[in-house]
Amino acid sequence: MPSVVSARGLDPIATNQLARLGVVHPAAARCLSDLGQRIFYPRGVTAQAADAAGCWLNATVGQITDGHGHAVPLPTITDSLGTLTAEDVVLYASQGGQRALRLAWQARLKALGGRVSLPVVTCGITHALSTVADLFLGPDATILVPAPCWGNYQHIFGRRAGARTIGYPLIADGGLDLEGIDRSIQALEGPAVLMFNFPSNPVGYSPTDAEAAALVDSVARSPVPLVVVCDDAYLGMDWEPEIHNRSLFHALSMLDARRVLAVKLDGATKELFFFGGRVGFISFGCEGEAAAILEDKAIGSGRASVSSAPTSSQALVLKMLEDPEMPTAQRALRDEIRARYAALKEGLAAAGVEAWPFNSAFFALIPVVGDAHAARRALLKQGVGVIAEPSVGAIRVSYASVHLDDIPRLVEHIAPFCR
Amino acid sequence: MPSVVSARGLDPIATNQLARLGVVHPAAARCLSDLGQRIFYPRGVTAQAADAAGCWLNATVGQITDGHGHAVPLPTITDSLGTLTAEDVVLYASQGGQRALRLAWQARLKALGGRVSLPVVTCGITHALSTVADLFLGPDATILVPAPCWGNYQHIFGRRAGARTIGYPLIADGGLDLEGIDRSIQALEGPAVLMFNFPSNPVGYSPTDAEAAALVDSVARSPVPLVVVCDDAYLGMDWEPEIHNRSLFHALSMLDARRVLAVKLDGATKELFFFGGRVGFISFGCEGEAAAILEDKAIGSGRASVSSAPTSSQALVLKMLEDPEMPTAQRALRDEIRARYAALKEGLAAAGVEAWPFNSAFFALIPVVGDAHAARRALLKQGVGVIAEPSVGAIRVSYASVHLDDIPRLVEHIAPFCR
Repeated sequence: MPSVVSARGLDPIATNQLARLGVVHPAAARCLSDLGQRIFYPRGVTAQAADAAGCWLNATVGQITDGHGHAVPLPTITDSLGTLTAEDVVLYASQGGQRALRLAWQARLKALGGRVSLPVVTCGITHALSTVADLFLGPDATILVPAPCWGNYQHIFGRRAGARTIGYPLIADGGLDLEGIDRSIQALEGPAVLMFNFPSNPVGYSPTDAEAAALVDSVARSPVPLVVVCDDAYLGMDWEPEIHNRSLFHALSMLDARRVLAVKLDGATKELFFFGGRVGFISFGCEGEAAAILEDKAIGSGRASVSSAPTSSQALVLKMLEDPEMPTAQRALRDEIRARYAALKEGLAAAGVEAWPFNSAFFALIPVVGDAHAARRALLKQGVGVIAEPSVGAIRVSYASVHLDDIPRLVEHIAPFCR
Repeated sequence: MPSVVSARGLDPIATNQLARLGVVHPAAARCLSDLGQRIFYPRGVTAQAADAAGCWLNATVGQITDGHGHAVPLPTITDSLGTLTAEDVVLYASQGGQRALRLAWQARLKALGGRVSLPVVTCGITHALSTVADLFLGPDATILVPAPCWGNYQHIFGRRAGARTIGYPLIADGGLDLEGIDRSIQALEGPAVLMFNFPSNPVGYSPTDAEAAALVDSVARSPVPLVVVCDDAYLGMDWEPEIHNRSLFHALSMLDARRVLAVKLDGATKELFFFGGRVGFISFGCEGEAAAILEDKAIGSGRASVSSAPTSSQALVLKMLEDPEMPTAQRALRDEIRARYAALKEGLAAAGVEAWPFNSAFFALIPVVGDAHAARRALLKQGVGVIAEPSVGAIRVSYASVHLDDIPRLVEHIAPFCR
């Protein structure tokens, strides 16, 4: 990923689309907005995952499966389906989310300290990111994103919102690039948004306690007013004991409100393994009147983008939160992923394959020799699906969607492409 | 509604929020985008519906209930819940929607004629409207909307997208204001978007065959390239035999592609009485390469706003479309609403209460003496919930959410406020 991405120019794909549309449908071409001209479906993670649909070994998507495309749900979900009432499914949910669910999610966050608003329910975490874009980004805005980062950040913040996305160096010497991150923050010249994403996608790294403290300190010394967004999608997917045991949000929310607003994005998508449910949350690191105003604006953004979030999914998430057995089942699923993680780590080491430092989430980011897309395509021919991350010359492997028994074969297949 | 609404100024609510946020959270205030400054949760239909939550007679929301807040679902939905597989619920759905569902919806549209792309699944119809805003509207754009219209149009297109919304006169002399609509179209001076919404919200009116033909003719004579959006949310909720029996989309899609692009927005929300499911569709009135490009852009907009739509809702909608018993059940539910419609029409006539012409959808729009909000608040005190439409000095009554037996009492309560 280049360190500064031009947000408003047309990508070659969009340029070609506009030219062809002018020929085959002139009225449509004449009526496209600036955003309509520049938007297209990016050939990123989801497009590459679709390419791998027929693979016998599919390590593309960040969701847990049995390794053969089947779901591995928390039992509460499947057990609860039959108990949903017609009202739980058919009727509209409240704007901003069902109140009982919002209160239950808030209680989870409050237990970990700091200031927290009443969470607003979003239609998945992407919608929470899009809400951040609505509230804090526009054509003149600057957002610092990790490099490398999830490709959809550039799509949401750069291509769609039209903001200037600047990459900060995430990793150095086997851990966070604390100096590089600090330098990026201290170089800011006006109000900005800073994205933290731990456990990170696509690297799969989470900070230690010392690294977490250093990040909070860097934010506290920001020379400009800063919105710090914690994309906590993979929260709790920590596979090593030294990882800082909570989101940075809790400490960030206690910083000076004249300088910093902390925002937390999270949800049931990964934490509760409810990928298709589309229940995310946006919470602000403040209380009282400030929280009320920001919640109102987030709900207003939601009203203009999706109206309410799906009713049945909200009912199922609330049932999970209320189920005393759920944490045990959640731990068991995490242990399953941890076992896959350990097997991959061991396999890569035995094969002498180097990866970016990874200790959490669902991913390993593995440098390849030559073009990442070429490696991806060659693996596809072998029936092995991975994601290309050409900005860093690597492939991203989602071990969460590979059966434990298949991890050694995954390593066998990718090793020839690696250094 | 004023005929031209300034899109980019701050509403008094937003102005006050910005001032207060500057005091209670300076960093947040400094970091708000232009959109973040102007967006807030509008005190419209959904906010007024929340006010009426405790009413014994709640005619606020456009969803069918038993009149006591309970759902009245199509049996396929409740019968199918127990048959959903874990994959139908837990895993991610494809970007742009499950292919089998998209094909099934397309087959329904194709059966009614004209050109049609492969529908793209959206997260409810509001998300389809928001996709239209992404593709075709921006700060320099013009959109013609009916006056009066659903309040969320102004929120989505004006406040959020920043476009100039211009109201065209919808009704005159007991039917459509065909002259006024034609004049509004012919006065356009540059590429624009035109919204049709039949059956209409809040008026509850649908065109006759002759009116439908006149509207298509007005569009065909447009002096400028035009995107004509058919918001068909209430499709099929026709209570009189003379109503044109399909969306205008089918005829509009056959117009000259150098002048007109037809876009269809519809979904399971009202048509299949699946309000909380959040399954909408956006379809373009073209085929081949033009359709492929516009679908790609719609999916790209979705990827940046919500990623995928809820998996289980898509599975349930597909089950409904595949269920041979569904059309019969759908007709039965429509008959129930038609009976409520007939009772309201009769009751209003007997009470000498005049309404705007209504023949379809879930609503009657009834002029009141004095301030619409005052009438709404007075009715709230009686335990009767209605929506205020102050732009036309009227209240909107959703008879679909009132039990047939309660319709006479509804008329009794509202009559004293009416002319």
